[in-house]
Amino acid sequence: MTTSKMTKIEKLTELFRQFPGIGPRQAQRFVYFLLSMRSEDLSELSETIGSLSKEVSQCSSCFRFFPAVENRYKCEICSDTSRDNSLLFIVAKDVDLESVEKSRTYGGLYFVTGGTLPLNEKNPDNKIRLKNLIDRTNTESQNLREIILGFNLNAEGEHTSSYIEEKIGPIAAKKGIKISFLARGLSTGAELEYADSTTLKNALKNRT
Amino acid sequence: MTTSKMTKIEKLTELFRQFPGIGPRQAQRFVYFLLSMRSEDLSELSETIGSLSKEVSQCSSCFRFFPAVENRYKCEICSDTSRDNSLLFIVAKDVDLESVEKSRTYGGLYFVTGGTLPLNEKNPDNKIRLKNLIDRTNTESQNLREIILGFNLNAEGEHTSSYIEEKIGPIAAKKGIKISFLARGLSTGAELEYADSTTLKNALKNRT
Amino acid sequence: MTTSKMTKIEKLTELFRQFPGIGPRQAQRFVYFLLSMRSEDLSELSETIGSLSKEVSQCSSCFRFFPAVENRYKCEICSDTSRDNSLLFIVAKDVDLESVEKSRTYGGLYFVTGGTLPLNEKNPDNKIRLKNLIDRTNTESQNLREIILGFNLNAEGEHTSSYIEEKIGPIAAKKGIKISFLARGLSTGAELEYADSTTLKNALKNRT
Amino acid sequence: MTTSKMTKIEKLTELFRQFPGIGPRQAQRFVYFLLSMRSEDLSELSETIGSLSKEVSQCSSCFRFFPAVENRYKCEICSDTSRDNSLLFIVAKDVDLESVEKSRTYGGLYFVTGGTLPLNEKNPDNKIRLKNLIDRTNTESQNLREIILGFNLNAEGEHTSSYIEEKIGPIAAKKGIKISFLARGLSTGAELEYADSTTLKNALKNRT
Repeated sequence: MTTSKMTKIEKLTELFRQFPGIGPRQAQRFVYFLLSMRSEDLSELSETIGSLSKEVSQCSSCFRFFPAVENRYKCEICSDTSRDNSLLFIVAKDVDLESVEKSRTYGGLYFVTGGTLPLNEKNPDNKIRLKNLIDRTNTESQNLREIILGFNLNAEGEHTSSYIEEKIGPIAAKKGIKISFLARGLSTGAELEYADSTTLKNALKNRT
Repeated sequence: MTTSKMTKIEKLTELFRQFPGIGPRQAQRFVYFLLSMRSEDLSELSETIGSLSKEVSQCSSCFRFFPAVENRYKCEICSDTSRDNSLLFIVAKDVDLESVEKSRTYGGLYFVTGGTLPLNEKNPDNKIRLKNLIDRTNTESQNLREIILGFNLNAEGEHTSSYIEEKIGPIAAKKGIKISFLARGLSTGAELEYADSTTLKNALKNRT
Repeated sequence: MTTSKMTKIEKLTELFRQFPGIGPRQAQRFVYFLLSMRSEDLSELSETIGSLSKEVSQCSSCFRFFPAVENRYKCEICSDTSRDNSLLFIVAKDVDLESVEKSRTYGGLYFVTGGTLPLNEKNPDNKIRLKNLIDRTNTESQNLREIILGFNLNAEGEHTSSYIEEKIGPIAAKKGIKISFLARGLSTGAELEYADSTTLKNALKNRT
Repeated sequence: MTTSKMTKIEKLTELFRQFPGIGPRQAQRFVYFLLSMRSEDLSELSETIGSLSKEVSQCSSCFRFFPAVENRYKCEICSDTSRDNSLLFIVAKDVDLESVEKSRTYGGLYFVTGGTLPLNEKNPDNKIRLKNLIDRTNTESQNLREIILGFNLNAEGEHTSSYIEEKIGPIAAKKGIKISFLARGLSTGAELEYADSTTLKNALKNRT
């Protein structure tokens, strides 16, 4: 770069670097890509981004994002009375929810925590909307029979799972709600030769 | 290459190309590696390979390979009376058995089929030692209570699993032996966002 | 997705998919990343993108992009009288120019064609600003002694190189300007074992 | 593994682990692959390896390996009087020589050093057959006009190049033999955007 004060190109490069999975080189490519776009396409992108927070709402019930509609506070899933309200599936992120919906294997409701807990997190409750989750567990209709904890099977996911189980366990117990966990075992395509010991152990222990 | 008739280097390169996972370039590298070895190391390798079939036996009971000992027909696992003979774990290959042993989560016996069934296999029974497996199921002590089918979770593995279940199902039923399958679900490190639909379905269906 | 009409989320996902190197999954991630941003950061990104074309100019001399300054039509490099104006380095893209500048091995001037020529391009001249390049070659001060063609060493880059050489060759010859090409040979880290025949040939032919 | 003393399987696994690029898992696979081979194929492999050192000679002139023929001490290349004996190409390994031959761009003679010099090598001269190279430079017919140093363009290769240049430089100078180096620059497929500074510098400096 040839000027000392920060240019728009540099600034935008830096903003793109914060995008998930984007390094300095690709960030710069993005900027030159935008510079090569027609002016009206650039405006469209700018406006779509600018209006995003106005035109997307966050569901007051499950906290996922959905297209904003005036006077509507719940997303399509939470508003859909045909879904099974005896089941509540707790996931970390919107993309996890999308992934489960796409598999067409679940007809219950969801709660999105917005993230998982790093092992040394100082403020765990905020990171995972614990207060909202407790509220929901308390006020949920008595139809709720089972809460499914659906976090990734890595250290952070398992830590989050344990933490939530500990916090909502007593409330759930009092209301007769079961807390369950996604099954562990061999996933599609798994090969015994390359499976780790924990996966083999779970696959054997939970054999059917 | 500069001669038209096949040289030792070319011949050995070709033999190494048949090794699992080895392309022409690495095969050639192996040959030059051998050429750079001391003569006595080369002899040792040659002799170890030459004597392999004499010094390794195949277990008459589970069909895995084990170090040959005169007048011994069963491997250490099959000879070990402290192992749980109510369980028989059927795997495709020695490396699968090694992988399960290494996980230290199983104390029963094994049967190695020697392979899996391609979907259009003409002679399926030979490929998986079906006659030996049926013999073993028939003659096994009445302690045997469960046969665990442990094939890879891919098309060939699942086909093999179904085929064996169909063939030994009636015998097992008559003798009160349960046929079970390794659990399916999320494996260590799995992320919901990237999990395939079948894995998500199994993880939900088998939740605990 | 659960609504039939196109949502902002879907629209933005589609816009991001057009970014270089971005697939559907990462495009969706970008959108959820934006949704998780604070409102003011989102506005900043939107505004930076929206004002990009106003705040970035294209140099009237070399055609690279540079931070817009009122009444300034040339970039810092073209305005820098200490640079060697006997050399003109022709590159396809701004990032190529940045890459050469970062190597600190060149002190002359540049011309950015804006792209390379696909082999069957119908309108080649527009794609590479040929008219501008010819104008520049014609009007350039008589100090210009050498035009360096610096395109990528792939089919499209070499085709572009030949095409430009053919088009500006006669003008250059008349004005006594040499046309030169970046050296070909082994690049840093190259291994003879894996080098392609053309590279080996160049490395031998141009040996020093 | 289930026995404490080292078995043939373990021993052979260990021997294969020493092969270039082979880890413990693939080494074990190789052994099971051999165990699954027919006895006569196993014998053929063992014999081919065992007879390798008898049936392959090392050229007394260039030190590459070639198929042994009684009373023949030079390889086909060194015996070929139609090759240009004014050029001597020094390479580290047989595979480098094969790579150059395959490119059909060189018609001179070779010398194979057998390796490159690690930066802190205590006995550099043995590692690269320096004595043999000096002997050859001294006794070579007066036709020899140029020695080409052709090592990989990495730290070890460049160190080897400098070391040899220093050692044979005086002899070469006395005999009027030029020492040359493979050209450095952009290799086939190179892109300016991703080229390192040294490569760009060489590509510019050596432009033609």
